[in-house]
Amino acid sequence: MNENRKKTMPELNRISQENYKELHKDGLVLVLENMRSAFNVGSIFRTGDGFGVSFIYLCGITCLPDNRELQKTALGAELSVPSAHLETAREAINLLKKEGYTILALEQAHNSHLLYSDYFVKGKKYAIVLGNEVEGVSEETIALADACIEIPQVGAKHSLNVANAASIVIWEFFKSKTYAPTI
Amino acid sequence: MNENRKKTMPELNRISQENYKELHKDGLVLVLENMRSAFNVGSIFRTGDGFGVSFIYLCGITCLPDNRELQKTALGAELSVPSAHLETAREAINLLKKEGYTILALEQAHNSHLLYSDYFVKGKKYAIVLGNEVEGVSEETIALADACIEIPQVGAKHSLNVANAASIVIWEFFKSKTYAPTI
Repeated sequence: MNENRKKTMPELNRISQENYKELHKDGLVLVLENMRSAFNVGSIFRTGDGFGVSFIYLCGITCLPDNRELQKTALGAELSVPSAHLETAREAINLLKKEGYTILALEQAHNSHLLYSDYFVKGKKYAIVLGNEVEGVSEETIALADACIEIPQVGAKHSLNVANAASIVIWEFFKSKTYAPTI
Repeated sequence: MNENRKKTMPELNRISQENYKELHKDGLVLVLENMRSAFNVGSIFRTGDGFGVSFIYLCGITCLPDNRELQKTALGAELSVPSAHLETAREAINLLKKEGYTILALEQAHNSHLLYSDYFVKGKKYAIVLGNEVEGVSEETIALADACIEIPQVGAKHSLNVANAASIVIWEFFKSKTYAPTI
């Protein structure tokens, strides 16, 4: 028997879309502010589903789950991860602050915290704001956030695609959760 | 003064494309096996640049850096991260094994190692094989690899975009390197 045999669909132990909301009610929350590319938004839904993201606020011009381009990269994850549209990221942040979330904007700013293993405190509620592909998170939204987090980089560009950057942050939060080591 | 002020281009301390190869000669190596989407390949170059990937082998049908779609998502990173085309992933793996690399295929397989913090041993040389978007890494290539690594997931899909999955693996390797904590 080839021990490297790929897992079949049933062997992946996927949860149902119906169970997702209940199982992942205390996961990470994302706030997408004026994200331009529907492909990026869909990609973030797909990664969010993989790591139990609880909710995605789609703010400003960010497209909605009925967008065909979003669906091409979300591959159905837009049906499992709950989401809602709000006019501004400010509305989302105000709602989340009332619920006790720490709001972190992903941005290369002067006093940003560098993301690293064990950055996220287990049991604490976090929401991450992800900005526009060109402009980043708006200055107004950065001012509303509790802090900026930055992914340290060492190359010639210092520029990550927002869906790739989101994947890294979502992954770090996921690892901080109780259930991660016991999967 | 607003301490959350975004960093300007000079403040990002980007290295030059000329210095990249020398500074990142002992970074992670990637082997892309028959990757279908030029956008994904370009995206992997961009993330690779951010975290000092040393070399990318573009195998089989994987497109080359002169591809216009690749350039749209690589945003110039195809000029800093060195790469070469080979007909098969097997050729790349054989070359890398002779140079002392541990070869890991990113695949959901039966005896795969679950990726986690501190998976990568500092100072050890690693190459990661990333497969086709639909078929994954080929069975032949999995058999040639030293092990499979798998990113644990808890959602309804158990399916990450290959560029997002690559970002997570590249990030975990990056953190294992000496320089990461002192940036």
